[in-house]
Amino acid sequence: MSSEFGKILRLSVFGQSHGKAIGVVVDGLPAGEEIDLEALQRFLDRRRPGKNGLSTPRKETDIPEFLSGLEGGKTCGAPLCAVIQNADQHSKDYGELSGKPRPGHADYTAWAKWGGHADMRGGGHFSGRLTAPLCVAGGIAKQILARRGVFVGAHLASVAGILDRPFPLYPTAELFEDLAAKPFPVLDAGAGERMQEAILAAKQTLDSVGGVVECAATGLPAGLGDPMFEGIESRLAGALFGIPAVKGVEFGAGFAAAAWRGSKNNDEFFVEDGAVRVRTNHAGGILGGITTGMPLTLRVAVKPTPSIGQAQRTVCLSRMEETELTVHGRHDPCVAHRAVPVVEAVTATVLLDLLLEGNHGTF
Amino acid sequence: MSSEFGKILRLSVFGQSHGKAIGVVVDGLPAGEEIDLEALQRFLDRRRPGKNGLSTPRKETDIPEFLSGLEGGKTCGAPLCAVIQNADQHSKDYGELSGKPRPGHADYTAWAKWGGHADMRGGGHFSGRLTAPLCVAGGIAKQILARRGVFVGAHLASVAGILDRPFPLYPTAELFEDLAAKPFPVLDAGAGERMQEAILAAKQTLDSVGGVVECAATGLPAGLGDPMFEGIESRLAGALFGIPAVKGVEFGAGFAAAAWRGSKNNDEFFVEDGAVRVRTNHAGGILGGITTGMPLTLRVAVKPTPSIGQAQRTVCLSRMEETELTVHGRHDPCVAHRAVPVVEAVTATVLLDLLLEGNHGTF
Amino acid sequence: MSSEFGKILRLSVFGQSHGKAIGVVVDGLPAGEEIDLEALQRFLDRRRPGKNGLSTPRKETDIPEFLSGLEGGKTCGAPLCAVIQNADQHSKDYGELSGKPRPGHADYTAWAKWGGHADMRGGGHFSGRLTAPLCVAGGIAKQILARRGVFVGAHLASVAGILDRPFPLYPTAELFEDLAAKPFPVLDAGAGERMQEAILAAKQTLDSVGGVVECAATGLPAGLGDPMFEGIESRLAGALFGIPAVKGVEFGAGFAAAAWRGSKNNDEFFVEDGAVRVRTNHAGGILGGITTGMPLTLRVAVKPTPSIGQAQRTVCLSRMEETELTVHGRHDPCVAHRAVPVVEAVTATVLLDLLLEGNHGTF
Amino acid sequence: MSSEFGKILRLSVFGQSHGKAIGVVVDGLPAGEEIDLEALQRFLDRRRPGKNGLSTPRKETDIPEFLSGLEGGKTCGAPLCAVIQNADQHSKDYGELSGKPRPGHADYTAWAKWGGHADMRGGGHFSGRLTAPLCVAGGIAKQILARRGVFVGAHLASVAGILDRPFPLYPTAELFEDLAAKPFPVLDAGAGERMQEAILAAKQTLDSVGGVVECAATGLPAGLGDPMFEGIESRLAGALFGIPAVKGVEFGAGFAAAAWRGSKNNDEFFVEDGAVRVRTNHAGGILGGITTGMPLTLRVAVKPTPSIGQAQRTVCLSRMEETELTVHGRHDPCVAHRAVPVVEAVTATVLLDLLLEGNHGTF
Repeated sequence: MSSEFGKILRLSVFGQSHGKAIGVVVDGLPAGEEIDLEALQRFLDRRRPGKNGLSTPRKETDIPEFLSGLEGGKTCGAPLCAVIQNADQHSKDYGELSGKPRPGHADYTAWAKWGGHADMRGGGHFSGRLTAPLCVAGGIAKQILARRGVFVGAHLASVAGILDRPFPLYPTAELFEDLAAKPFPVLDAGAGERMQEAILAAKQTLDSVGGVVECAATGLPAGLGDPMFEGIESRLAGALFGIPAVKGVEFGAGFAAAAWRGSKNNDEFFVEDGAVRVRTNHAGGILGGITTGMPLTLRVAVKPTPSIGQAQRTVCLSRMEETELTVHGRHDPCVAHRAVPVVEAVTATVLLDLLLEGNHGTF
Repeated sequence: MSSEFGKILRLSVFGQSHGKAIGVVVDGLPAGEEIDLEALQRFLDRRRPGKNGLSTPRKETDIPEFLSGLEGGKTCGAPLCAVIQNADQHSKDYGELSGKPRPGHADYTAWAKWGGHADMRGGGHFSGRLTAPLCVAGGIAKQILARRGVFVGAHLASVAGILDRPFPLYPTAELFEDLAAKPFPVLDAGAGERMQEAILAAKQTLDSVGGVVECAATGLPAGLGDPMFEGIESRLAGALFGIPAVKGVEFGAGFAAAAWRGSKNNDEFFVEDGAVRVRTNHAGGILGGITTGMPLTLRVAVKPTPSIGQAQRTVCLSRMEETELTVHGRHDPCVAHRAVPVVEAVTATVLLDLLLEGNHGTF
Repeated sequence: MSSEFGKILRLSVFGQSHGKAIGVVVDGLPAGEEIDLEALQRFLDRRRPGKNGLSTPRKETDIPEFLSGLEGGKTCGAPLCAVIQNADQHSKDYGELSGKPRPGHADYTAWAKWGGHADMRGGGHFSGRLTAPLCVAGGIAKQILARRGVFVGAHLASVAGILDRPFPLYPTAELFEDLAAKPFPVLDAGAGERMQEAILAAKQTLDSVGGVVECAATGLPAGLGDPMFEGIESRLAGALFGIPAVKGVEFGAGFAAAAWRGSKNNDEFFVEDGAVRVRTNHAGGILGGITTGMPLTLRVAVKPTPSIGQAQRTVCLSRMEETELTVHGRHDPCVAHRAVPVVEAVTATVLLDLLLEGNHGTF
Repeated sequence: MSSEFGKILRLSVFGQSHGKAIGVVVDGLPAGEEIDLEALQRFLDRRRPGKNGLSTPRKETDIPEFLSGLEGGKTCGAPLCAVIQNADQHSKDYGELSGKPRPGHADYTAWAKWGGHADMRGGGHFSGRLTAPLCVAGGIAKQILARRGVFVGAHLASVAGILDRPFPLYPTAELFEDLAAKPFPVLDAGAGERMQEAILAAKQTLDSVGGVVECAATGLPAGLGDPMFEGIESRLAGALFGIPAVKGVEFGAGFAAAAWRGSKNNDEFFVEDGAVRVRTNHAGGILGGITTGMPLTLRVAVKPTPSIGQAQRTVCLSRMEETELTVHGRHDPCVAHRAVPVVEAVTATVLLDLLLEGNHGTF
């Protein structure tokens, strides 16, 4: 088992980068939900490559075909299957890789697991391309959540060490929409320009850079999630680490809080308009694995794209000797900005799963 | 469902801090494994409180009683149940808390979920005390892993921002043993002293501090784990976030790598003694969710203990008005050092689960 | 993994027949549910042995101790752990069995799985005694269900081929109570006497007999369950086959319907008091894996107790040669009547799990 | 969640009878397994309709397209997705049904669950047509199992009460092949003719009949499966009840054993060629939920097709009043014979899942 997650809402992702098609089965969607396919396509376009010099020139229209689960524009209760054809494969670029694992890629581990049978053209099943079907599922989840007052948005918290402003204490749906409309999703335009320069600078030296994505969700009720291993953090992290290139996940103040004192980190409660609120949200909207009703915030570390044009040392697996490898083909000098909608998608899917599960504590 | 994890090896943790007993059912252990109960007790003693001024004075012997699964000192295949009696409860210390959620604690979210029915004396099921049964399971898993050449160790990477040395590229079983024998598990003794001073300084001002635990596992085969959502990172993070007070998890270079270039982050392969190795291990032994066979490394952010003696603002839930709260009772000025064996325990349990599952790719 | 089931409500059963104790962890119970411990004990007493000549004379009080999850007589949201001490073990009766698997028992398969490490005294973890903790969980589930108008009851549909009357089309809660109060739970007293005679006749010849349990549940809403592999039948059967000695499960008309025509088997709908109803219920309240709102009915085949006093042929596993075995000790000449509350317990647990999960189709 | 099962090998089935396509994602197949597509197609043809008067005249070529997971004729480790286009839909035949649930069908329960949003044309996701993708998965599993000496075969044990001979004690792979090659899979040709006459007789009166499928698996090692709820019977039954129209599952002697004495039902062990064997196999190769190494045998009750041409009473859901319904369109007068390969497919999938999981008891 591998490419699945969820409890009530189940995702099963399939496909290889250079196979016939990629796709996803989404099982457990509520019935009768209208899906705005144009809005979904706009969401998918946010991660689509080939739009500018900041990402791979691989051209993919990435238009999903729905084989099941969607009738007359609405979910029908049955599992939804969406398929995206692979169009612009350049598999020959990968010919020379065979037997020489690219540093930082899953080539070596796929070989260790599946031997020579792994289809690693373009990264195979491990490719970032597999995040397209994730975005189909997540884009649908976002629409269903928004109808219930739950909004999910994200921005680039940093690229190559250059920091964007953090989300405000109570981010609004409008702010999320503004970010979604931007070609480069940051809050601070100046920081965004410096980030883009850093990406292009890395590209010029046949190198790449990483970044951090900050994601928030608003409108969640208090009391969602379960103690310990079924806590919100466990379930979100379990899914977020499934996104290729993610190497860290933190909630609220996260690693920063580890250097703080309790008196700083604790979020004091107060009453406003008859509701319990907080003046700080270092907990990221989660205490004991359960939602507080405050905005949920998380950050995801995306490593620099392992595919770089520079010559690198590696080994020839058949001869077990050292060799040099230069990766040709088309690569993203940074995937963090394309990961922004993916983090939203995965977060939205997990949150919808949790909402569908309900708060059994008070059944 | 809540307090469970695992796939072949399943853990189910139960108990409340001030209830009769706490414990764990471990289902799926291989049969015929000899368990050294003295070594297990030494492991449990590493997280036991009341040993010095760095932790709560609550006295608990924390000696597990095995109700099932262990016969003649060996696992018998049937589920193992271990129970630890609660002895030194001071429930009256918690009398005044009722209806006034402590900032940073699960009091508010437990109330949101379970209403007034939640047993939150001493933190109830959310208490750090529930990590004792985790350590029983993990201590057993560690013994079984060690017999197969897999070793798990951890140290305090930082407390209150004071950094220990990181693990070396290839940590040894001896290094893990040395750390396990230390009352304060750090690699750099000087850093350890400064950390302890920081803990005591926080204690004196009725405050607390957080920290980061670094954990490593050696001897794992390459090819363990599955792509995407069943990757090693997903499964470890899902379990590690179940430990109370954990707010961040990263693997290898983690968040730091997000500021690096690919040429720095990529670990080049080379051949040594006929085996593929790396000169750096920024991937933390994991590529594409699958083990590389290099040491697995991860870091866990532990927030400062939310229980502090200073007066804090909170709300009275019955009257929905603001109020002040001073938490009496016995508290840990820091839980990060006590979390060290817990992180080892959870890591070992997940790794044993993965090893028991085997590498189905080459079945 | 082995002795668990459930999705929102999770059960983890532990213990061996001659170990220290047996028990169960029930995770996911709604909070604030009052548990009537006297009513629970009456339910447990229905499966308790040693009451008359129809079952083993092993004396067990079978009084559960609650280590967690129950505070002030109410569930508190945290996992509930119930432990039952083993008292009246006669392990020496099992001394001679070692290495000679009893026909019809799990001795041989436990040895194949766990080698000599298996604790098979009294059947070990495979013993019918493990149904006592199941009844603790199920008895609690029954109380919670009854509070919501869902009632579960069962009777002996047959013993040794002697048939009881089937349940009426719409069994009432009163009928279930009447059955629960009977020492031998049948609808037709005359059939019940003949069954008891058959059991005693088998006992006199050092033999045993099997039987069938019919179980029904009323008050379920329509629309519960999911298509295909998460259908009600799949989930109930998956749990019911976990009861020792169960070799068949059928719903509604079951195997009989396989000999019928569609015109007979189809249940025609009609309207009564503004609700859709049926005049026959051959579907057993389930169509397409989803509840119709009619009574759910199922039957469970219980094989004759494998422990019989007659000499039987078996093999000596160490010498790999044939030998004869006479099983001494205390045995049930029939376990079908003691299985009646167990089938109720498992059915109630699965139904509560499904109700807690809710009808996500119309979220 | 709904249309999934498996633990290491996961199936996710999607599609509606009259949607664009149906299909399956199979996640967790071992890599490097050669799939004989012609043999697979022959297997699929066994359940394909439209071949003679015994099944619906709906014409479907049922040729799967593999979107992923299969490269160069071999599994590559990544999830396999197979899609079958729907071709010969006659949706207009279903126009008049809307709002009038067909007795014995899932129309009413789908409406109860998903309201008017359910796509119930041709039975929608509940249609027997969804067994085609199950057979793709199962046909692949059968090939992988056969390579390891595990063979799965089935025949019609009965139709309309007419009995075929049971499987012999040790059925051979050749016997399974003979059955697979027969247009009507029975052991006793005379019984087969009478069954076919019964089907055609039912068809002439616009009625239908049910049947029982007996399935066996040989070559399994002893020690497979886990105690209680993860036993072989639990896992197989959980999957088999997911097949549309299945209302009963029994193992070995099953319900018959409930009328027997223990001395008859117990299978005595003996030694032959250095291996433990049995002279009878009433246990169906399973004791305590774990394989004995003897042939695994099970029987599945298939109800008579609910779609019959006779006028039936039902209700108009919008007006909540009684009405009459005559189901037009193309129907199977019996689905039991078409269910034979489906039962093999599901059994093979579950057994491969169990074999992939391995025998963790002796890890």
